[in-house]
Amino acid sequence: MEVGVLKEFIENDPFLKLLGVRVEKIQAGSCRLSLNYKKELTRFGNILNGGVTAALADAAGGCAALSYNLGKNEVTVDLSVSYLRPISEGKVSAESSILKGGESIAFTITNVYDGKGNLCAVAKGTYFYLNEFNI
Amino acid sequence: MEVGVLKEFIENDPFLKLLGVRVEKIQAGSCRLSLNYKKELTRFGNILNGGVTAALADAAGGCAALSYNLGKNEVTVDLSVSYLRPISEGKVSAESSILKGGESIAFTITNVYDGKGNLCAVAKGTYFYLNEFNI
Amino acid sequence: MEVGVLKEFIENDPFLKLLGVRVEKIQAGSCRLSLNYKKELTRFGNILNGGVTAALADAAGGCAALSYNLGKNEVTVDLSVSYLRPISEGKVSAESSILKGGESIAFTITNVYDGKGNLCAVAKGTYFYLNEFNI
Amino acid sequence: MEVGVLKEFIENDPFLKLLGVRVEKIQAGSCRLSLNYKKELTRFGNILNGGVTAALADAAGGCAALSYNLGKNEVTVDLSVSYLRPISEGKVSAESSILKGGESIAFTITNVYDGKGNLCAVAKGTYFYLNEFNI
Repeated sequence: MEVGVLKEFIENDPFLKLLGVRVEKIQAGSCRLSLNYKKELTRFGNILNGGVTAALADAAGGCAALSYNLGKNEVTVDLSVSYLRPISEGKVSAESSILKGGESIAFTITNVYDGKGNLCAVAKGTYFYLNEFNI
Repeated sequence: MEVGVLKEFIENDPFLKLLGVRVEKIQAGSCRLSLNYKKELTRFGNILNGGVTAALADAAGGCAALSYNLGKNEVTVDLSVSYLRPISEGKVSAESSILKGGESIAFTITNVYDGKGNLCAVAKGTYFYLNEFNI
Repeated sequence: MEVGVLKEFIENDPFLKLLGVRVEKIQAGSCRLSLNYKKELTRFGNILNGGVTAALADAAGGCAALSYNLGKNEVTVDLSVSYLRPISEGKVSAESSILKGGESIAFTITNVYDGKGNLCAVAKGTYFYLNEFNI
Repeated sequence: MEVGVLKEFIENDPFLKLLGVRVEKIQAGSCRLSLNYKKELTRFGNILNGGVTAALADAAGGCAALSYNLGKNEVTVDLSVSYLRPISEGKVSAESSILKGGESIAFTITNVYDGKGNLCAVAKGTYFYLNEFNI
């Protein structure tokens, strides 16, 4: 499997498709994912629902983990999100990279930015590799 | 504002409506929210996307925080989710309660169960109160 | 190895000895550890240093993990602590139990109480098992 | 109060003194703290006890928060530590900086390195400001 193949997998993932997640960049151990701010993804106050931010950060961390150990599947073990600023406009993007990868576990850090380039959330994700890529 | 009014707010929240979140129970400082497992909320492997679990846990924690200090709005400060088991069927429910509430901050713990009653995720959420309920 | 043997290991661990950690109770998958509040463990304001709380919670989670899979060693993967109330007196105790254990990973939840029985911190810990108990 | 004054406060904090924590660098919103690896700070296996890593990371995050809003005291709200590699030698240092600061809350990120410069832990810390510096 090549890194580029992951783009198609991620973008056709049912829930990520519902959110409108796109893979903007991907290489071994890092990636940038994005989605458009839109009404259906908000909470009251017209800010992006924190669950969307968490989902995007988890997808980006998982994508970085998948790209680091190609051919292995993974599941999230722990996800920790700090919400620095509300997101109320523009393209929302998540840049993720591997802090440390191994045979069993990968640690990632992910920065989430709003359309103006403000850092709005930071997430740490821990992923456990499964041996097969059972799609 | 009465606790019961929150049910309507939560269920009409744009993103929570997209997920199909229902408020099953709510009282001062605790609640149970649920959603149905369905294809659009999954990831490859036909398990619930971890982002959905995080979003449901955050919504439940936020709902518990809102019910604890009625009339105040809140934003999530920190959300930490541990994924114990994959969720592959049934009604998914999240039971949340306040660990400690104050004027400025509320801490919550949330257990997420699958349709068979298995504990599948545990989340801690920290919420910061805003003075007005600006819907 | 029997569960009871862990008490001796834990209490003779160099850093835990420095903190004065005692194992009060231990059984397969759960334990209670404690230490005495004392000046050397405080920060300014005469409250227990948050690092002591984190260290006690991590020790309790690790102990619960060790007791669950006897004969295997473990390392902490992720530790997440929420500080609900400052601790300013008495015996400090940490009750930990396994949320989900497996061959590779154990998830724990730990409640930390002050001398009056107030819940002062809640921690989630994730531990990875090593195959040998290399003491 | 000037930033430089914090160095003395931190290094004379009772528990941080017990650990041997030194302030190597400090400026508005960031700092580097260190301690020496030594037997009393280890766990079995001769690696640094994870509680020491957590305590050092929390101290560094708190120091960054104090330096950002001089004259205000703070307490830790949430601390989340990911353990990437065991630490078994050398000077251990923690570099912390503010991700986002405000009147009430500061978010920090802290990298912990061993004596060889390996990144061994990453921590996110959330701090709540108190109005007075009640030493």
